[in-house]
Amino acid sequence: MLDISASYTDLYQLTMAQVYFKTKPKSIAVFDYYFRHNPYGGGYTVFAGLENILEILENLHFTTDDITYLEKHNFEAEFLEYLRNFRFRGTITSVAEGDVVFPNRPILQVEGNIMEVQIIETVLLNILNFQTLIATKASRIRHSAGNKILIDMGLRRAHATGGYLAARAAAIGGVNSTSNVIAAEDFKLNASGTMAHSFIQSYKDELQAFRDFAKIRPKNCVLLVDTYNTLKSGLPNAITVAKEMEARGDRLLGVRLDSGDLAYLAKQTRKILDKSGLEYVKIVASNQLDEYVIKSLNEQKAPIDIYGVGTNLVTGKPDAALDGVYKLSEYNNDARIKLSENIIKVSLPSKKQVFRMLDDSGMFYGADVVGLASEENISQMLHPFDSNKSLNLQNFKQEALLQKVMQNGKRTIEEKTVAEIAKYTEARLALLPDEYKRFQNPHIYKIGLSANLKSERDRLVKEHKF
Amino acid sequence: MLDISASYTDLYQLTMAQVYFKTKPKSIAVFDYYFRHNPYGGGYTVFAGLENILEILENLHFTTDDITYLEKHNFEAEFLEYLRNFRFRGTITSVAEGDVVFPNRPILQVEGNIMEVQIIETVLLNILNFQTLIATKASRIRHSAGNKILIDMGLRRAHATGGYLAARAAAIGGVNSTSNVIAAEDFKLNASGTMAHSFIQSYKDELQAFRDFAKIRPKNCVLLVDTYNTLKSGLPNAITVAKEMEARGDRLLGVRLDSGDLAYLAKQTRKILDKSGLEYVKIVASNQLDEYVIKSLNEQKAPIDIYGVGTNLVTGKPDAALDGVYKLSEYNNDARIKLSENIIKVSLPSKKQVFRMLDDSGMFYGADVVGLASEENISQMLHPFDSNKSLNLQNFKQEALLQKVMQNGKRTIEEKTVAEIAKYTEARLALLPDEYKRFQNPHIYKIGLSANLKSERDRLVKEHKF
Repeated sequence: MLDISASYTDLYQLTMAQVYFKTKPKSIAVFDYYFRHNPYGGGYTVFAGLENILEILENLHFTTDDITYLEKHNFEAEFLEYLRNFRFRGTITSVAEGDVVFPNRPILQVEGNIMEVQIIETVLLNILNFQTLIATKASRIRHSAGNKILIDMGLRRAHATGGYLAARAAAIGGVNSTSNVIAAEDFKLNASGTMAHSFIQSYKDELQAFRDFAKIRPKNCVLLVDTYNTLKSGLPNAITVAKEMEARGDRLLGVRLDSGDLAYLAKQTRKILDKSGLEYVKIVASNQLDEYVIKSLNEQKAPIDIYGVGTNLVTGKPDAALDGVYKLSEYNNDARIKLSENIIKVSLPSKKQVFRMLDDSGMFYGADVVGLASEENISQMLHPFDSNKSLNLQNFKQEALLQKVMQNGKRTIEEKTVAEIAKYTEARLALLPDEYKRFQNPHIYKIGLSANLKSERDRLVKEHKF
Repeated sequence: MLDISASYTDLYQLTMAQVYFKTKPKSIAVFDYYFRHNPYGGGYTVFAGLENILEILENLHFTTDDITYLEKHNFEAEFLEYLRNFRFRGTITSVAEGDVVFPNRPILQVEGNIMEVQIIETVLLNILNFQTLIATKASRIRHSAGNKILIDMGLRRAHATGGYLAARAAAIGGVNSTSNVIAAEDFKLNASGTMAHSFIQSYKDELQAFRDFAKIRPKNCVLLVDTYNTLKSGLPNAITVAKEMEARGDRLLGVRLDSGDLAYLAKQTRKILDKSGLEYVKIVASNQLDEYVIKSLNEQKAPIDIYGVGTNLVTGKPDAALDGVYKLSEYNNDARIKLSENIIKVSLPSKKQVFRMLDDSGMFYGADVVGLASEENISQMLHPFDSNKSLNLQNFKQEALLQKVMQNGKRTIEEKTVAEIAKYTEARLALLPDEYKRFQNPHIYKIGLSANLKSERDRLVKEHKF
């Protein structure tokens, strides 16, 4: 489904590229991808979308239709010829997909011909910003849900075809399965699904609807019990059918609650099921769930086994977008900077490496240090703005986060399945202390600069001062 | 880009379809598409996405890969054979795409074989919910912007490939052009784009960057003036280049402000441009704009000619989704209903028609009346819940909103371009009185039922009472 041509870009990338083509077609540029704020007011972010970007970039080209279209938009023949042969041949270093990342330090760096790295900006931001937003949301929902099962049910409210990659990102963040068939098929996710209210309404009689379903789909059978009245109709009918299934040697997997007070109904439902000897029947809950509602349900000890999460998961509600940006940091081996009135928004120049500090026990210490790409084992980290603050790094193990993933337009790392990435996310989140994971005023994961990088940045700031 | 196979659905549509296949494969069902709340707390909604749905449904089928995948998921061979030959052959009546619509009355009705109408639910909701959300957002931004030019610049923050249809929906709601090349190409939208900060940063010198750009792209040239300092650097350099362009017989189209206080900077910029004899140079503003910021800028008389709108437009921020649903209203000619504790959430049974009331001057009166599909010229509308309230309709012109758009799986209306739909939206919004368009506590557009429909609904509610 990710049938993306090179015209999946902003027009200004092409107008700029044409100027580069005429004035400096051999120039080499380095761009950084990073974001400015953790989404949801949280203390961390889960990076997702890298595998898709590598696949897209390896195949990116303008179609004949694209060129025909661009011919009508004031592009010159020679430049159109360049576009006809356009391929991305750049080199990328990146944090591993699924890793835990933080604001204002590079997640990914692209180096290559300036036209190529400019043209891919839009698709790169589009794919990484969105999946990172959703993987992070999913990880927060997972944090609330503990070891309960989570199902993505969001496709109908997703942002059109964005729902496809939403299902992928949700899996990376810790969601166990999806209702989205095409996403499950393409990304090897677990698929799950039961029945809608319309199924029951198509029968005169709820009991008959349950009976037909349980006979024909006995495996993983979950009955939706709130069409008419959960406790007076749906649940008694489900129990009748569960007993009939037992007589046939089958087992009802669960009942689903999709409206009303889920804590109250789950407790009543559990009690009634247990009294009927149906301790094995699970309770599935859905209806506008997010990390806060699930946290509250767990705190109320609602005996829910499986949560179905939809709109809030696949749209990243209440955040509309991750504020990821793509900034020039080097041009023909010359460091570059983007100024701002606000020092926090000043970009970091040059090719860089990000080092994560690990403490004695192997946990994240709570600081990433950004140095020049040529540096190793940084001995001291400096506060980005406050010259009185620094930290000695001699006692930390340092992990270099940016690794080469693509060279000259060809991927240099092996493909990873979504399941493998999700496993990695789980492992990395386990290394992040809990105070960064809480929803209210999470602890701030620090950023530091190496002395070399800081003096380079400060030099460029002075150079551009007005 | 809309390469959507029939497995773009929720798994439960297929599990339900298999049960239908075994128990009642010839049944005919009618489903209603409607939503429950206008997005953004607004007073109206712009319906969008119908053309895409008709195109998708005419071509919908399961691919060989889909079938291979489903073979592993407990589906029986006979049912898989059915899916292999699956085509949508149903009939659809709908409000015209681009019309102004309101909550809790049918926007679209699907009638057909129960398996077919169930399987298409997900894609239908996915495409219509999202585009309707964005077209409505765009229309609100248009309302604030008056006759100023609006550009969609949102692709990099859109929900992945959802940005493609976001650009389409934005155009329907009144946005003039888009930065999104592939959307412009496929939907015949106006494309626009200028330059990014990185373009200027790739030069040692802002003036040289402007010069190169203006020479190579003199048509529609807009210079971004805030890379270093808007008033001290960007604007003086832009003026120098504008004069050089004049000497060559070209004209600078505009300058773009992308940070800082846009009202203050636009006023200063206008003054300085005018003093330099550059009254014709337009001011473009961007940076986290939405309908509220644009309203405020206009109230401050900021002399901005063109607004670039990104994230807030293409994500429909702060609303994550339109709450559109798809409910069974008839099964084998038998009226059906979905109950709820909340009478507002009880669905309307049977096949229906929606009549819009027009007053003497041809404006919308502020009431839609829902009747049975067989009714015409309804003489009295009843309040859906309050039996003391009714309204005599003799003096209104009545417009039937639901028209046949597809029969037996083939579209029955001519294709409309996005430009035609946008024009229709503009015309329909012009008939909606202003009090429904204001952002704060908009007037509520009423819904009424015909006596026949109300008695049908009340009969079914009684039948299901516990």
